[in-house]
Amino acid sequence: MHAADETTVGELGERALLRRVFDALSGSSEALVGPGDDAAVLAVPGGRAVVSTDTLVHGPDFRLAWSSGFDLGWKAAAVNLADIAAMGARPTALFVALALPDATSVHFVEELARGLRTACEELAPGCAVEGGDLTASDTLTIAVTAFGVLDGTEPVLRSGARPGDTVALAGEVGPAARGITLLFDRFRDGAGTPVPVDDAILTAAERRDLTAQLRPRPPVSLGVVAARGGATALMDVSDGLLLDATRLADASGVTVDLDAVADDAALRGGEDHALLACFSGPLPEGYRAVGRIVARGDAAVTVGGEAVTGHLGWDPHHDWDAGLG
Amino acid sequence: MHAADETTVGELGERALLRRVFDALSGSSEALVGPGDDAAVLAVPGGRAVVSTDTLVHGPDFRLAWSSGFDLGWKAAAVNLADIAAMGARPTALFVALALPDATSVHFVEELARGLRTACEELAPGCAVEGGDLTASDTLTIAVTAFGVLDGTEPVLRSGARPGDTVALAGEVGPAARGITLLFDRFRDGAGTPVPVDDAILTAAERRDLTAQLRPRPPVSLGVVAARGGATALMDVSDGLLLDATRLADASGVTVDLDAVADDAALRGGEDHALLACFSGPLPEGYRAVGRIVARGDAAVTVGGEAVTGHLGWDPHHDWDAGLG
Repeated sequence: MHAADETTVGELGERALLRRVFDALSGSSEALVGPGDDAAVLAVPGGRAVVSTDTLVHGPDFRLAWSSGFDLGWKAAAVNLADIAAMGARPTALFVALALPDATSVHFVEELARGLRTACEELAPGCAVEGGDLTASDTLTIAVTAFGVLDGTEPVLRSGARPGDTVALAGEVGPAARGITLLFDRFRDGAGTPVPVDDAILTAAERRDLTAQLRPRPPVSLGVVAARGGATALMDVSDGLLLDATRLADASGVTVDLDAVADDAALRGGEDHALLACFSGPLPEGYRAVGRIVARGDAAVTVGGEAVTGHLGWDPHHDWDAGLG
Repeated sequence: MHAADETTVGELGERALLRRVFDALSGSSEALVGPGDDAAVLAVPGGRAVVSTDTLVHGPDFRLAWSSGFDLGWKAAAVNLADIAAMGARPTALFVALALPDATSVHFVEELARGLRTACEELAPGCAVEGGDLTASDTLTIAVTAFGVLDGTEPVLRSGARPGDTVALAGEVGPAARGITLLFDRFRDGAGTPVPVDDAILTAAERRDLTAQLRPRPPVSLGVVAARGGATALMDVSDGLLLDATRLADASGVTVDLDAVADDAALRGGEDHALLACFSGPLPEGYRAVGRIVARGDAAVTVGGEAVTGHLGWDPHHDWDAGLG
């Protein structure tokens, strides 16, 4: 016999586990038909739905020594909410496919569900988990599909930036990248295996960076603000400002010239899921200028007019070894 | 150097792999904004969307010795299309989160994409893969979220069956269960490890059962037919007729009395994804009577008026060992 919070997924069985997950998500559904039938039914005012999928896999995307169940639920929600915001849309529902090793503790799964719910409540009020799927797997995997609506505006794509537009950011760029560096540099043993974080040896600034990595806070509500404010292009910064600005530049056929003020973590780090937007007129509240769109030159992205060299962004596949925690 | 079709996912990299996947899916999108931006934008006539998620994980849900990439893509699409049909809705889009070991061959992934596309074309014309996500993982995982619309009808839930209704089926119940039994009995070596199927040693009937297991053909278009035909309750049979009829009976607060004609594979096998529907009036085309709804008794499901005992359905977690292929 285990204590209640050490019960494993394998011991509990799918039906009882689902009940625990529903309990942890309780009361948050605004669907016409929520979890429990073959599918959910969602209201789609305006008749257009925005849908995106993003997955967190144990190993390439997270380590259990560093992330709690709550952290993982939060992050899985946050990165998907950011994708919906990055279209200028308002997220309304998440669908979560959880693949769980039998030895996973039920408490961990409940915390994961609580993290999903709390991220929705704090980052995208009105959005909730409306369905999902539990499967057994040797690899802990959290696949989230996010669903949103356009509140009377057109979707804002990556391809609409034009020379003369101001390039703007909402949200932070840098802390999450400093956080992952901190984990790799300070919380691995001699063999490179992740070890639990000891908050006591961190400064307040380091703790903030760590939280930004483990529980990112993308400015989800500012996606709709950008659309209403006339954004010509919009995306979220997930793989680093330089790399994502390159994607926007290529999609729009322009060059993004960034101001030469950002530090290296800000230019090359991703995972804060800031919103990168272009505006031909004044910036709406929450956005700050970080550069301008110019006619397409040799480089897709320049900083202070100079081409950028070296590794552009964070590679989640880098350094992963199945034997690590 | 490998031959072209032996290139692995790890060698090719995500960007090039995505291009191969898009090529294999090509031309099928009917989205307002398809793959390539932060999210897809779908038209939702009627302002209501039906959404469901189902995942296939290597091990519990499939073995690579038995299923080809095409088979897996087909099956991942089919089971999700069936869930949308089971609400009385018409599937319009799939979102696919693929988690792939680096050693996976690119050819396998292309075949998987082709299987997804072909299943959509054959089972649900007008539906296509409209987005997705590629991640590295130690465990091959295919998480699909399906999206559908209601063509002017109400969603048909599991909870609306009333005494006096006729219980009806569309599609087959049994072949897929016989197919999995065939695989376990005939295509494992002495240690229980799956070995490739040798078609030559199978009868024509056995080959049909095997195909039903590996590439199920749920009667997707008959979901909308049930809704238009006044179905009071509807679901797909995924875990066995007895087990799924129990769920419908419990949701509706009634007893399902099945005719005493079905064989054991039909009663206990799932995975054909037949549609189980209840009608208070005449049956629409494509449905056949298999029983009736009576007032709730001691048992949720009876066969010819008699209570049923024993194992009700197929358990995908049964008999799985990570060491097997």
